[in-house]
Amino acid sequence: MKKKAAILGVTGAVGQEFVVSLKDHPWFEVTQIAASERSAGKKYLDAIRDPNTGISAWQVRGEIPDYIKEMTVISVDEIKVDELDLIFSSIESGAARDIEERFAKDVPVISTSSAFRYEEDVPILIPGINDEHADLIDVQRKNRNWKGFVAPLPNCTTTGLAITMKPLYEEYGAKKVLMTSMQAISGAGRTPGVSAIDVTDNILPYIPNEEGKVKKETRKILGKLKDGKIEPADIKVSCTCTRVPVIDGHTESVFVETSKPIDPASAKKSYEEYSKKISVNGLPSAPSFYYAVHEDPNRPQPRIEREVNDGMTTTIGRLEKEELFDHGIKYMLFSHNKKMGSAKGAVLLAEMLYKKGKI
Amino acid sequence: MKKKAAILGVTGAVGQEFVVSLKDHPWFEVTQIAASERSAGKKYLDAIRDPNTGISAWQVRGEIPDYIKEMTVISVDEIKVDELDLIFSSIESGAARDIEERFAKDVPVISTSSAFRYEEDVPILIPGINDEHADLIDVQRKNRNWKGFVAPLPNCTTTGLAITMKPLYEEYGAKKVLMTSMQAISGAGRTPGVSAIDVTDNILPYIPNEEGKVKKETRKILGKLKDGKIEPADIKVSCTCTRVPVIDGHTESVFVETSKPIDPASAKKSYEEYSKKISVNGLPSAPSFYYAVHEDPNRPQPRIEREVNDGMTTTIGRLEKEELFDHGIKYMLFSHNKKMGSAKGAVLLAEMLYKKGKI
Amino acid sequence: MKKKAAILGVTGAVGQEFVVSLKDHPWFEVTQIAASERSAGKKYLDAIRDPNTGISAWQVRGEIPDYIKEMTVISVDEIKVDELDLIFSSIESGAARDIEERFAKDVPVISTSSAFRYEEDVPILIPGINDEHADLIDVQRKNRNWKGFVAPLPNCTTTGLAITMKPLYEEYGAKKVLMTSMQAISGAGRTPGVSAIDVTDNILPYIPNEEGKVKKETRKILGKLKDGKIEPADIKVSCTCTRVPVIDGHTESVFVETSKPIDPASAKKSYEEYSKKISVNGLPSAPSFYYAVHEDPNRPQPRIEREVNDGMTTTIGRLEKEELFDHGIKYMLFSHNKKMGSAKGAVLLAEMLYKKGKI
Amino acid sequence: MKKKAAILGVTGAVGQEFVVSLKDHPWFEVTQIAASERSAGKKYLDAIRDPNTGISAWQVRGEIPDYIKEMTVISVDEIKVDELDLIFSSIESGAARDIEERFAKDVPVISTSSAFRYEEDVPILIPGINDEHADLIDVQRKNRNWKGFVAPLPNCTTTGLAITMKPLYEEYGAKKVLMTSMQAISGAGRTPGVSAIDVTDNILPYIPNEEGKVKKETRKILGKLKDGKIEPADIKVSCTCTRVPVIDGHTESVFVETSKPIDPASAKKSYEEYSKKISVNGLPSAPSFYYAVHEDPNRPQPRIEREVNDGMTTTIGRLEKEELFDHGIKYMLFSHNKKMGSAKGAVLLAEMLYKKGKI
Repeated sequence: MKKKAAILGVTGAVGQEFVVSLKDHPWFEVTQIAASERSAGKKYLDAIRDPNTGISAWQVRGEIPDYIKEMTVISVDEIKVDELDLIFSSIESGAARDIEERFAKDVPVISTSSAFRYEEDVPILIPGINDEHADLIDVQRKNRNWKGFVAPLPNCTTTGLAITMKPLYEEYGAKKVLMTSMQAISGAGRTPGVSAIDVTDNILPYIPNEEGKVKKETRKILGKLKDGKIEPADIKVSCTCTRVPVIDGHTESVFVETSKPIDPASAKKSYEEYSKKISVNGLPSAPSFYYAVHEDPNRPQPRIEREVNDGMTTTIGRLEKEELFDHGIKYMLFSHNKKMGSAKGAVLLAEMLYKKGKI
Repeated sequence: MKKKAAILGVTGAVGQEFVVSLKDHPWFEVTQIAASERSAGKKYLDAIRDPNTGISAWQVRGEIPDYIKEMTVISVDEIKVDELDLIFSSIESGAARDIEERFAKDVPVISTSSAFRYEEDVPILIPGINDEHADLIDVQRKNRNWKGFVAPLPNCTTTGLAITMKPLYEEYGAKKVLMTSMQAISGAGRTPGVSAIDVTDNILPYIPNEEGKVKKETRKILGKLKDGKIEPADIKVSCTCTRVPVIDGHTESVFVETSKPIDPASAKKSYEEYSKKISVNGLPSAPSFYYAVHEDPNRPQPRIEREVNDGMTTTIGRLEKEELFDHGIKYMLFSHNKKMGSAKGAVLLAEMLYKKGKI
Repeated sequence: MKKKAAILGVTGAVGQEFVVSLKDHPWFEVTQIAASERSAGKKYLDAIRDPNTGISAWQVRGEIPDYIKEMTVISVDEIKVDELDLIFSSIESGAARDIEERFAKDVPVISTSSAFRYEEDVPILIPGINDEHADLIDVQRKNRNWKGFVAPLPNCTTTGLAITMKPLYEEYGAKKVLMTSMQAISGAGRTPGVSAIDVTDNILPYIPNEEGKVKKETRKILGKLKDGKIEPADIKVSCTCTRVPVIDGHTESVFVETSKPIDPASAKKSYEEYSKKISVNGLPSAPSFYYAVHEDPNRPQPRIEREVNDGMTTTIGRLEKEELFDHGIKYMLFSHNKKMGSAKGAVLLAEMLYKKGKI
Repeated sequence: MKKKAAILGVTGAVGQEFVVSLKDHPWFEVTQIAASERSAGKKYLDAIRDPNTGISAWQVRGEIPDYIKEMTVISVDEIKVDELDLIFSSIESGAARDIEERFAKDVPVISTSSAFRYEEDVPILIPGINDEHADLIDVQRKNRNWKGFVAPLPNCTTTGLAITMKPLYEEYGAKKVLMTSMQAISGAGRTPGVSAIDVTDNILPYIPNEEGKVKKETRKILGKLKDGKIEPADIKVSCTCTRVPVIDGHTESVFVETSKPIDPASAKKSYEEYSKKISVNGLPSAPSFYYAVHEDPNRPQPRIEREVNDGMTTTIGRLEKEELFDHGIKYMLFSHNKKMGSAKGAVLLAEMLYKKGKI
């Protein structure tokens, strides 16, 4: 029997991705869907439609899956938590604080919001990268006297950096990371999102609050869980985050200083070995290969990479020795902000936690 | 009486910018214009037109200046060098080797090509930044027994980096520079240039040969001329150069390690002081301010900055302390690849050399 | 002595264009500027800045003119109408109804909103096209017992169509017009405007209410003023209006059935003759040529045409005989939605009315 | 046993689409692949790679199918025609004249080029629209004494127009059609294709030779085969073809005058009925619905429609009564230029001809 799941914020951009990611899921079944009061009481097909114009706000590639079309959207207050095994939440961070806490008392909440990320007893989880941090969930439950828990994903810009840094940090002892991101417009959502008049033929050199999140989260994700606490990784991260006229998928240019010698060939080998042994291999939402490393210097390209394994593979290219440091490497990465960096990554996280018996 | 100038490659993208930059110039007068055999013998207005379709290849904003419309394009072999005081060359680097050498025997050649940039007795000049390297021209003349000389501009991606590094290098002792560029499509020319199918909604992570040029040229430009040679600056440069869907103007994200303490306020002050005392102030093609430093984190933006001072100002924003290094700073810069980084920068260079009596 | 003018909605996109269009104006002087309560009491430089982030909302090419920087923004209620000779209003159509009426009682109001366009005693004016409709203003004044009046511009999509139809209608008796527009994203404003996620690599096939306006307004503008009423032109207009990923400037593909024989050569001649004798020639904001007709089939192109005469020229290209009709012609037109189709067109209108003694 | 097929021009943009469209095909098997001399003798994986840079020219979404990777590319001269049942040709029109003729003597050639489209004994076929024209193939064979034949697709801009006109023409007697296209950049290929510098933030108002093709081909496709000849449809077609910054999929705005009364509801019903009974239903490459008609005025949008049924569905929206004519209708259509309008449409055509026993 499948685990019963609810989606909170089901009409929004991330909520729509949850709808698609959970279609025909072998383990999870969507039994309740919630959105704002305005949508409550409507069938999904109607809730996603503008009441005045009849225009659909569905924006995920492909049609709305049949399973959700006739399901009735309820308000968050109408959620019957006792009929649920887990909740996927894409509520925006402000409101998430209260709502996610309310539900986490009873049931696991997998969240894409930043509301709980920086709490001491809350791990920021990337499935395949820091699964062992999942044990912090037990501390969280005990601390807060919750039956459920909150398990947030990182910011979508952190995702690609942390995933690609993991093997380097473990094997070569990464000390310093300097990153410049070129982020997709879909990362800013749709209402209001980025105005076309602002980003067409342009680069926006600043994304509020983004850089601080990337620095903090990367250190936490790569840190060690010890005595019920996460000791942040001993790695210095600096970054500049920009918005570019690309629809989906974040690209990042990374320079790394390592403690030990490293070169493109050894780094490639590390990624390939990690890919083979990555914990999530075989999970329903996992890609057939976790890392893709290209020698063709023309990769990664967002328009190509976003199609690979439905956006669940992280792509690395332009691997070169970084001569500025005693030991170091530079590369470019691509990570899909709507897939591995968001809803489908959250589903993969739920799968990992389910396998671990946390759900 | 004005100095008589020729433009080589006058129908190409850079050649067109020369045409505009030299319109109504107070010191220089275009008296000869040359292009390929195919164009020779035609009036400019006809030469710029596709013979089959009648379509104009003019692509600079605004109309073709009247002064050039009826001028007859000649072939390079028809150039009467004895009737010239200087030559502006936008010939592509392969052909430039022979052609520029041929003319430099008699007359100063200001070039946008890379053909001579890495010769020991050839300076790479950015007016306002390393004017003193112009003295290497005398060595060049003597070495080669030339009456004229070749004075090349740097690659357009180097331009912004070297201009913004200059005050940092002089005042704070820049040691390491890590740069990621987001370059405009106009930097690749038009025939063939970048295909729309390749760059729309995309990032191209690689520009052949670009990174090597930036590293080499930055060190040479910031170096010291001593005993008839340029000793490259003691600065380590690393960079990753990418192409983004932006029409004009290169953006660069820069991280710098300095020898001495630096912070955003001191850096801003340095730029502003340099701006005031910059050697080119008052020259006909110089901007009213050489550096623009913004505290608004939403600057620089290519669509805004490219309009400032007709693309001759270099813009700096996002100045922040770089905590990864003992001393350091990070920033983003904008430099117009078609203006300061190309033809109009070359005209400004000619003005500087004229003032110095080299032309 | 210059006429004293106020700008209403001075911080918005159209308001900013008014600021630029009235800079150093020989006849009009901006003495009062008004915006929403939120901006009232601040200097323009501060009012245009987001109070939280400090980010400037200035989006017109080039810097904010000095004359306005330190001027204090007031609320609409604080406008001292007795110290004004005219008002430029870019208030959105909902609020414009009341506000424009209030001021029109005392002073001429030139408006870009649709609030009064369809009233019987209100002309929709395009300077150079239907100047004689300005006499309806006298009827309006009398009817309403106003000292001032309201004079609205048409919708920016109507502007290009009506301008290019005028000579055809007068000389060849246009009977049917079928138009497809490809409109710029700046036509939708900025807050919220068109989302980048919606229009990048896409076409939006529908713009709410646009097509009805174009049909109605074109007929009114080309109509005859007789006995104090405008009799709409006897011309059938159909159109489909779309949004395309172009920043500034509307392009329209037009098919016309005429009563009399017409061919590209005769049409071109008509446009050129109109251009020479157009009533606005010589006015401060008028272009050096009102119509530009190209034989190069690659014109009009928005990126080129928007630079011509600061967006005040209407461009026509692809003129071909339309064989589907007994007599007919087809063409493409470009009209700048932010310049001739908006604020600067409104300033030109004020100039025309001033010359006529209406202001 | 599957029919043995060759692909000519297998490394080009259309050739790549053939490779994908024929993957795991139930009836056809790719046994020979040919390209230019430069590629001959190489495995596909190597042939698609630039010999100098190692960069792959593969540009279709998704990876290169395994079945083709190791297959050896041969030159056109090396094709063994006696081991083939049919040929798919994407050779450019100039060379296609000779090459397609040479092979058509022995084997059916399905072509995307225009080389033979306007010959009297060559039908222009759109599967589902004018299948009965396939009988002209017998005339062609007899006339030319060929064992095979040439069966070309129309131009990709004709495809959408002819498909959407078919039910209107049959049921309402379409008399006049006025169309404006907004065509995708992928329609121009990649080498050289459309330069990004030309089309970004722009519209190109002219596509050489396109409009003439659309007019001629639409009339031929909708015509009647009688006495071994196609009598063109009695329909007047006018069009203006433009290029817009959209990657894939052509959008067209259409105005139609009909002989009989028509309204949106009746037109929609016609399309839906045609969809149900369309001849290609059930063929391997046919879409699950041939026409999609939307009442939501925000459809069709290229970014959405191109995903529907892998680009094989033609989408219609904005259906409205056209009041300019006694009877008439207007609408917008979307047709995927790389799928139904090109290689995959050609595979569907081959399927239809196979069912008819022509292959």
